[in-house]
This record gives sequence, structure tokens and C-alpha cells, in this order.
Amino acid sequence: MTKAIGTTLWVLADGYIPGESTGEPPEMLSHEAICVLNTSDKAADLTLTLYFEDREPVGPYELTVEPRRTLHQRFNDLRDPETVPTGIGYACVIEASGPVVVQQTRLDSRQAENALFSTLAYSA
Amino acid sequence: MTKAIGTTLWVLADGYIPGESTGEPPEMLSHEAICVLNTSDKAADLTLTLYFEDREPVGPYELTVEPRRTLHQRFNDLRDPETVPTGIGYACVIEASGPVVVQQTRLDSRQAENALFSTLAYSA
Amino acid sequence: MTKAIGTTLWVLADGYIPGESTGEPPEMLSHEAICVLNTSDKAADLTLTLYFEDREPVGPYELTVEPRRTLHQRFNDLRDPETVPTGIGYACVIEASGPVVVQQTRLDSRQAENALFSTLAYSA
Amino acid sequence: MTKAIGTTLWVLADGYIPGESTGEPPEMLSHEAICVLNTSDKAADLTLTLYFEDREPVGPYELTVEPRRTLHQRFNDLRDPETVPTGIGYACVIEASGPVVVQQTRLDSRQAENALFSTLAYSA
Repeated sequence: MTKAIGTTLWVLADGYIPGESTGEPPEMLSHEAICVLNTSDKAADLTLTLYFEDREPVGPYELTVEPRRTLHQRFNDLRDPETVPTGIGYACVIEASGPVVVQQTRLDSRQAENALFSTLAYSA
Repeated sequence: MTKAIGTTLWVLADGYIPGESTGEPPEMLSHEAICVLNTSDKAADLTLTLYFEDREPVGPYELTVEPRRTLHQRFNDLRDPETVPTGIGYACVIEASGPVVVQQTRLDSRQAENALFSTLAYSA
Repeated sequence: MTKAIGTTLWVLADGYIPGESTGEPPEMLSHEAICVLNTSDKAADLTLTLYFEDREPVGPYELTVEPRRTLHQRFNDLRDPETVPTGIGYACVIEASGPVVVQQTRLDSRQAENALFSTLAYSA
Repeated sequence: MTKAIGTTLWVLADGYIPGESTGEPPEMLSHEAICVLNTSDKAADLTLTLYFEDREPVGPYELTVEPRRTLHQRFNDLRDPETVPTGIGYACVIEASGPVVVQQTRLDSRQAENALFSTLAYSA
């Protein structure tokens, strides 16, 4: 399988990193991540732009997914151009240099037992 | 990024605001929300119509998403033309004046530990 | 809004009604449901066929969604041609006489605190 | 219903089998599964390829979904060519010999009360 699968523009409209956690980090730290699959034989360069409710977009955040690899990237760990604030809503546009597939996952451990969701991002 | 991404008609078929909550409001209040992203340089005017199981649709609910902004709007907080009842099923059609992306999220804190889901709305 | 939105063929591949529950029924009974929206001015007749892992499909199950109404139908409550077994996997094809939107939701209360998911069905 | 529904190429970008469990196996074992529906009158042969973050893809994993049947297959139970490691991220491409529908589901019972999600896979 070296075929390129997916598209080059993805959106997640409900971004949110819960501000508190219960349980052992890093696994049980409240987090939000994008999981990206690059099935092709060329590296995929990703450019992320974050949107907020009350200020201008922030970016670009730059990531690379190597050929025939997946990348599970937590928003919690993004540093450049700035960290992603917790406890407030955001949205994210992901532009890729080649076809990829993007899925969004959040683990919420604010209360004693964790909640979890995962959903395909919107492909434009 | 000032490109307009998305479509102008979105549907969520499973609407439900749990009637009880456990934990500290507003964060842990049981709620349902739409998260809308407007990447364009023009404000997006949204018109929501709510559908029920046993009565005629209610609306329009009117919202605006500013240019290059996201809006995380709880159904719990809608007031006009009327509040959204809790503990009963509804559905929602969202019409936008320009392309947007809509994701639906529910936090259910009826029991001691919260449950959570999020899913893309249906784009028509 | 009297426009017909959606399509006439929907699939959910992961059907499962957990066999146990914790908490007060009917709300906290473990259940799986389809939520269907019919925005049109004509009733939508639904025909459901259930697929299993080790026997022939069962159906038709027949439901009607009235004009401009939503229907939140639990699989737990289907009776004809037969009840849906709990604790085993199934899948479901939904054929509608007119355009509708279908979302699948499961509440799992096997353990003390409920888990929840909801996702758009596959539209063919 | 003997019509073939779906497509022949599916992707899940967020694969992860939690490394710990609470509760009675097999039901409450932390697991991840694909649920596949084959509505056609011909068996569907599936070829799965797993992608990782730091090594070459692994596969093929081969499965068959009989005509008019659903298959709920846990990644935990795959053995050939090798077992799927727990506690690390992966992704999966599913190629089918005929049209099928694929949905991904994870039950996470690392903490005392289980979390759950299910989402349609990406159809290419």
C-alpha cells in the first residue's frame, strides 16, 4: 500500500482542551489530538491555523508526517507560535502538502472517570 | 487563511439536553452545543430551526459568527423565540449565509462522571 | 423550512445493545437508538433490515416519521417481526420513502457511570 | 435487501488499544474494533494494513465478511502476521473485494467506569 489516500484540507470545529485532569499523566491527562495518516511515499507537511471566539487566528503551526506513517499529535504539546490555551473553545484548519486522513480525539479526565470521543474531521 | 470553507446547510438529527447535572456549572452542566467555524472574511448569519417529535418546528433562532471566528453555542442558552426544553429529543437545521463547518457536542453529567460525544453535523 | 433534506438510504455498521444497565429506567437504561429527521411536508416511511454475524437478516421493521418531525427510536423497543437481542453485535440498513437524516446514539450504563456516543449514520 | 452498499476502501486514523482494563472480560476489556457490514450476496475479503508512528506498515491482515452478514472484529484478537501492540497509536487501511460499510468503536476501561466512542471510518 503506497497509494496516497485522503484529501489536503481538513477542519475541526469543536476544539477544547479541558483545563483539569484526574489520573496519571501523560495517558490520563485531559487532552485533544489530531491523528493523521499519510499512506503515501512522500512526507506530508501540515500547516495548522487555530481560530478563536474573540481574537484573530493564530498560526501557522507546522508539522510533518513521514511517508507511510501516522502522527498522533496532541494540541497540548504545540509550542510554536504559541501554546494552545485550555478551558476555552477553538477550531482548527489543517492544510497538507499531500493527501492525508485526519481524525480528532479528546480525552476529558476532569472528573474521576474519563470521557472520550473521536470523530472524523471535516474534509473540504 | 481567509478562504471560505464548508457549506451553508447543516443538520443534527439527535438533539437532547439531559435534564439533570452533576458537578460545577457552567463547565459541568449537562449541555449540548454547536461549534461553528467561519474561516471567511464575511460574517456568517445563521438561522436555526428546531424540530420536535410531537409539535411543529420552532424558529428562527438567529446567530452570527464573525469573520475568522469560531462560535461555540450551547442550545441551553438559546432564548428567542423560546428556550429549548430539556429531557426530550429534538433535531436542528442550520442555514448559514456563507460557508461554515458545524460540529455537535454533548456533555452528559446526569451521573457522577460525565459522558461526552462530538460528531460532525450532516452537511447537505 | 419545508425543504426535504437528506437521502433515502442509511447504514449503521456497529449496532449493539448492552445487556446490562445501572440507573433509573427509562433514561438510564442501556440503549441504542436512531434519530431521524424528516424536514419535508410528506411522511417518510422507513424500512429497517437488521444484519447479524451468524444468521440471515431480519426485517422489515416499519416506522413512520411524520412531516416536519423527528423520531428518536430505540432499537430496544422494536417488536415486529421480533425483538432485537442484547449483548450481540448487529448492523442496520434504513431505507426511507423520502429524504431524511439519520444519526445513531448509544447509551451504555453497564458500569456505574454511563458512557455515550453518537455519530452520523453512513449515507449511501 | 441484497444490494451491495458502501465502498471498498476505508481508513481509520486514530487507532489505539488502551493498555489497561477494569471490569469483567471479554465485555469490559479495553478494546478497539471495526464493525463491517456486507449487504451483498458475495463474501467480502478484507485486507488490513496497520500504520505506525515509527516503523514500516504491517500487514496484510486478512478477514472475510460472509454475504448478508456483519463482522465485529476486535484489533485485540488479530494474530497474523503479528499481534497489535497496546498503549501506542496506530492507523488502519481496509481494502475490501466488494462494497462494505466500516465503523470504528473503542471501549476504554482503564479507569473504573468505561468510556466509549464510535465513528464512521473515512471512505475513500
